[in-house]
Amino acid sequence: MRMAELSRASGVPVPTIKYYLREGLLPAGQLTGPNQASYDQSHVRRLTLIRALTDVGGMSIATARVVLSVIDDPDRTVRQKLGATIRSLGDIQAGGRADGTGRSGNTADADSPDEEQVQATKKVDDLLERRGWHIDETSPARAAAADVLARFDRLGQDRALAALDGYAEVAELAATTDLDVIAGIDDGDELLETALVGTVLGDALIIALRRLAQEHLSSKRFRTPPR
Amino acid sequence: MRMAELSRASGVPVPTIKYYLREGLLPAGQLTGPNQASYDQSHVRRLTLIRALTDVGGMSIATARVVLSVIDDPDRTVRQKLGATIRSLGDIQAGGRADGTGRSGNTADADSPDEEQVQATKKVDDLLERRGWHIDETSPARAAAADVLARFDRLGQDRALAALDGYAEVAELAATTDLDVIAGIDDGDELLETALVGTVLGDALIIALRRLAQEHLSSKRFRTPPR
Repeated sequence: MRMAELSRASGVPVPTIKYYLREGLLPAGQLTGPNQASYDQSHVRRLTLIRALTDVGGMSIATARVVLSVIDDPDRTVRQKLGATIRSLGDIQAGGRADGTGRSGNTADADSPDEEQVQATKKVDDLLERRGWHIDETSPARAAAADVLARFDRLGQDRALAALDGYAEVAELAATTDLDVIAGIDDGDELLETALVGTVLGDALIIALRRLAQEHLSSKRFRTPPR
Repeated sequence: MRMAELSRASGVPVPTIKYYLREGLLPAGQLTGPNQASYDQSHVRRLTLIRALTDVGGMSIATARVVLSVIDDPDRTVRQKLGATIRSLGDIQAGGRADGTGRSGNTADADSPDEEQVQATKKVDDLLERRGWHIDETSPARAAAADVLARFDRLGQDRALAALDGYAEVAELAATTDLDVIAGIDDGDELLETALVGTVLGDALIIALRRLAQEHLSSKRFRTPPR
């Protein structure tokens, strides 16, 4: 199909498609003339994927390029790609939102040692040990989790900190469901795309369902106002 | 304390504090002179809260103002505030990220009926029925969940759609943990702040822990590459 048809099929405007092509997010079409290229269903699919990552995942174009380049890399095995994809999302999503440094706006002197951050990192390490989770030292999600704990600490949210193991239980149930979703997929590309989309859209789904479950459970528990 | 001390205690620069004061996010200090005001620990705490909502929750200043105004509203009971806070976060967080309209960039004609969206809304309604969750018709998290399902549908992610009940189980476990965290808090203001911070930071925590659990479980399951 031509560019105009690709735009209609995907709902993405032509100038945006051209931008994704220039930025290397969308593979070039098959050249059919000096100024003309032909696109197929793989391009429609890739465009929908880019919109899911950027709209729902809140990723920048630069970030989406990094994530997609892992999937496109012909020199890695599927297993290596899967690990790299999960790790890249840990950096970008949780880390991006939680500001992996754990410092922004919360310490007057950015060079001073940050006691809450040190304590929080230890809490995460202890949790990983308790649960027997084997995690790469360099995994960005480790720092992202520690950053959240440090913020709880600064806000005096001891109750939330005490519930850490409960949230780890939630996360393990989520990850078990995630792995069940990709279990039995033989095709490497399909497995990676499912893992990527399932992780990014899954965050948004879990967050939305958590709100609904909160609304249901809190209206059940608080039939009479607590005060 | 003076403004300069408030800045040191909170780590928030003076111009930013003045901006929050102008925007009504931070209550004014006690006037001690024509051009001078005095601040206390409640201001330090509020500043840390604002940074948690904006940095970690990714909220705009306008959004944070709406959420904080619910908590500050003297005309609502704690129970009403709790419900309003949960609902406002459903709109802002999941809805904001997932784009509640379910349309952006994915339908060529924004005025045409969107079949995936209609189907997805029905899937969410059926889920609520199956689980016995009583949810307000106007709850924005309902639309946010439907939007994610519509995107899964457009991406042909049938496996993720089939796992919806699994993710609802995850969400119910998360919400049960959330309610346990606020159980037994007698003070209304503390209850609301804990629910607000626990929900916003809790999203980031669950996302980070989900990545860690994914890394652990996938390295366990995929000892040999699937291809």
